[in-house]
Amino acid sequence: MARIAIDMDNVMADLTTHYLNYYEAAYGVKVDPATLKGIPEGSGFPEKDAILGFLHSPGFFRTAPVIAGSQEVIKALSEKHEIFIVSAAMEFPLSLAEKLAWLQEHFPFISWRNIVFCGSKTIVDADYMIDDHDKNLRYFKGVPLLFTAPHNALLTDYKRVNTWQEVAAYFALDTVTAI
Amino acid sequence: MARIAIDMDNVMADLTTHYLNYYEAAYGVKVDPATLKGIPEGSGFPEKDAILGFLHSPGFFRTAPVIAGSQEVIKALSEKHEIFIVSAAMEFPLSLAEKLAWLQEHFPFISWRNIVFCGSKTIVDADYMIDDHDKNLRYFKGVPLLFTAPHNALLTDYKRVNTWQEVAAYFALDTVTAI
Repeated sequence: MARIAIDMDNVMADLTTHYLNYYEAAYGVKVDPATLKGIPEGSGFPEKDAILGFLHSPGFFRTAPVIAGSQEVIKALSEKHEIFIVSAAMEFPLSLAEKLAWLQEHFPFISWRNIVFCGSKTIVDADYMIDDHDKNLRYFKGVPLLFTAPHNALLTDYKRVNTWQEVAAYFALDTVTAI
Repeated sequence: MARIAIDMDNVMADLTTHYLNYYEAAYGVKVDPATLKGIPEGSGFPEKDAILGFLHSPGFFRTAPVIAGSQEVIKALSEKHEIFIVSAAMEFPLSLAEKLAWLQEHFPFISWRNIVFCGSKTIVDADYMIDDHDKNLRYFKGVPLLFTAPHNALLTDYKRVNTWQEVAAYFALDTVTAI
């Protein structure tokens, strides 16, 4: 049994789709997701401060869509391994309660004992970390797995997982039941 | 420079005094703190479920008194070491925002990067852990320091620190400035 630390934003919660939808609703402009590839998260939108504004908006994290396959694969992983949800939530104080409620809604099988909201992730002791950010994976002492997001498209330093199906294959899960 | 994980409840926040004050206000009974020694946290009060009720009450964590010396000594520690505040906040969802606001008020020098709200503390990677609970110190791989609280009075398994002055002496801090 391994201990696997799993990030929320862009790994379990589809913030990219959420940014695009929020942006269209707020500014009436449909941004092409292809233009976000390889540039820093939150940039690439005509209004420069729009995304930071969304991140500080009540309800933003609570209403994020779930990334396809994350529920089924994390449930299957949790049956063979010790999983911890590790989210850098401290930068956005509103997100604390919203993220906990979001997890309770979409991942009710995860115990509060296995949830960590932090700032820096350097304090996390685990065997694997699934995350979309170089800054979180860089100082990790275990095995880093880069979950693909537009902003990390050009990063070549890590073993990459593009989908939750690839995560299931990496951990050799043969039975993943639909939720 | 060492990394020091510091618990909040009963280490930075004086929950014992807070329990006694809340209890007196709610039930009109002054409980003698000496009767709480060596028995589980929250027990020893005539109304069995009172403390659990307080822990789930809005405002309880936000209004907790600060333990004497914690501000000065943690500030001095943070200038020589990497400190992380690690609180098992996830069991009480209301406490998340309240604990963050409490830290911002009483410990404004602590960055959000160095705050961790978790369930189980087994995931914490640090050199030292200052905590009042056996369950948190038991699986810690670094040096555990037991901060004295009534409920742990009989525990003899750890190096004990009774006050923040003793923590300062343990880490050989020679300049601790009053806040």
